[in-house]
Amino acid sequence: MSMLTRIEAALERHFVLTQTYSAPPRLLMAMRHAVFPGGARIRPQLCLAVAKACGEDDPALTDAAAIAIELLHCASLVHDDLPCFDDADLRRGKVTVHKQFGEPLALLTGDALIVMAYQVLARSGRQHPARLVELLATISDGVGAPDGIVAGQAWECESRVELGQYQRAKTGALFVAATMGGALAAGVDAQPWRALGDTLGEAYQVADDIRDVMLQAHELGKPAGQDAQHSRPSAAADLGLKGALDYFQNLVQAAMDSVPACESRTAMRQLVLMESERLVPPSACELIASQHATAPVRANA
Amino acid sequence: MSMLTRIEAALERHFVLTQTYSAPPRLLMAMRHAVFPGGARIRPQLCLAVAKACGEDDPALTDAAAIAIELLHCASLVHDDLPCFDDADLRRGKVTVHKQFGEPLALLTGDALIVMAYQVLARSGRQHPARLVELLATISDGVGAPDGIVAGQAWECESRVELGQYQRAKTGALFVAATMGGALAAGVDAQPWRALGDTLGEAYQVADDIRDVMLQAHELGKPAGQDAQHSRPSAAADLGLKGALDYFQNLVQAAMDSVPACESRTAMRQLVLMESERLVPPSACELIASQHATAPVRANA
Repeated sequence: MSMLTRIEAALERHFVLTQTYSAPPRLLMAMRHAVFPGGARIRPQLCLAVAKACGEDDPALTDAAAIAIELLHCASLVHDDLPCFDDADLRRGKVTVHKQFGEPLALLTGDALIVMAYQVLARSGRQHPARLVELLATISDGVGAPDGIVAGQAWECESRVELGQYQRAKTGALFVAATMGGALAAGVDAQPWRALGDTLGEAYQVADDIRDVMLQAHELGKPAGQDAQHSRPSAAADLGLKGALDYFQNLVQAAMDSVPACESRTAMRQLVLMESERLVPPSACELIASQHATAPVRANA
Repeated sequence: MSMLTRIEAALERHFVLTQTYSAPPRLLMAMRHAVFPGGARIRPQLCLAVAKACGEDDPALTDAAAIAIELLHCASLVHDDLPCFDDADLRRGKVTVHKQFGEPLALLTGDALIVMAYQVLARSGRQHPARLVELLATISDGVGAPDGIVAGQAWECESRVELGQYQRAKTGALFVAATMGGALAAGVDAQPWRALGDTLGEAYQVADDIRDVMLQAHELGKPAGQDAQHSRPSAAADLGLKGALDYFQNLVQAAMDSVPACESRTAMRQLVLMESERLVPPSACELIASQHATAPVRANA
């Protein structure tokens, strides 16, 4: 089974458990709208890949960690799209939750998805409760205060913010939860996997900044030019497109170098590379490079 | 140490752990604003009382369960007060989080408090990880879909709703988490404690409906007349004030009767009775009864 198939199946399994006759039907519809069909599911894939590299022995717990992280990510998207933040009409190429179901239900959908992440963990933690405690701590730290994605988003409400800190929290923190969560679900030390999540997360945020400037809304599946419109910290704004691209490529290299020694090291490095090319396609790299009249950008830098 | 002192100390301890130099300062201020000073802290007190009645042997875990439930309650208040729901200016006698810190930060404050509840559980679960798994499940079910407080609030977005189901979810679910959570933290079977949470929670919601009709904003510490203004299901609207009061008194009696056999049964019943008199003071009962020209209401019904 491919990782994506495994992720969708696990999500569906947990949604079925939530859909009882006693649940408010529109809340469940809105929750499904926020989660299906998904984006690239990069965070849960990363979690599964690390668990596999660490000798996964409790697949239900790995699935739970991966799914929990994806649900928390989806929740953050629903809340970020609300009128008081991005006021976005589009997400993943379709209408946003609050545009479809109204603002009150979108607010509750985000809340319910956060809690569902923990319900998923609880359902799958009975075989290895000690691992569950560590997973609970690591995943929560990737989301909450002081350094998780909610704190990252909250930096947008501060008058002064340091770009790196903002990006590490806003995006990196959940990537760290994904890589460390994979290791913890497999029952091994998670620290060696922190750097991969950290660098890949920051690369992902820088790529997002680059794409926000370069691409049109129909290519992004969400509104473009949002960083400038909302005066958000952005690598593309701070460093220029060429500077941001260089920074991105350095981060991708650092992510690949950080993969700890394990049987599937080559496959993991390949996954990072493929993901980086999905985020900023080689054609975009060439375009930026040519606009700046510099040497051609190395395709696998 | 009184239960209230114990609760405030545990909350403060966990807040200090969240306040690192890397956290966005305004987010932390808003989180504190939402939590301190508190209301009656009835849910965590109930949790502590049940744990004590069940022979509490891991006070840190009991504290964590109680605090987690209070944080989840505070989070729900912050989100319920937002413009897309109650658009309230006042909560617990002071200005609401979104009025003080703006809507974006209020949204994130609710999210961060939800996650903080789980961070608190994770920090205190290492001594009894198997209990933690059960606590995680029970507390999450009190908050999320299909039957928790978020689902209860979501019933307000449905075109048809049954009053009892709405109230059980909107308020009862977290009371159930409080009573069962207390038992689970003490490592004993939680099922015998479900009915206490269930009936007390419903009584609490009915009392809230009565108070919403009877009292002025300065007495409530929040806006009055909100149920009618937002066309929300309300026992006072459905049954009339006298009918709602009768229903309330029956629920309080049922809650007292439900307390399982334990050393502190008398004290637990006394706690329920005192809480019921705080919610709907005997003077209010007399006023309602006299307006309906019925027999005097029994003070301890």
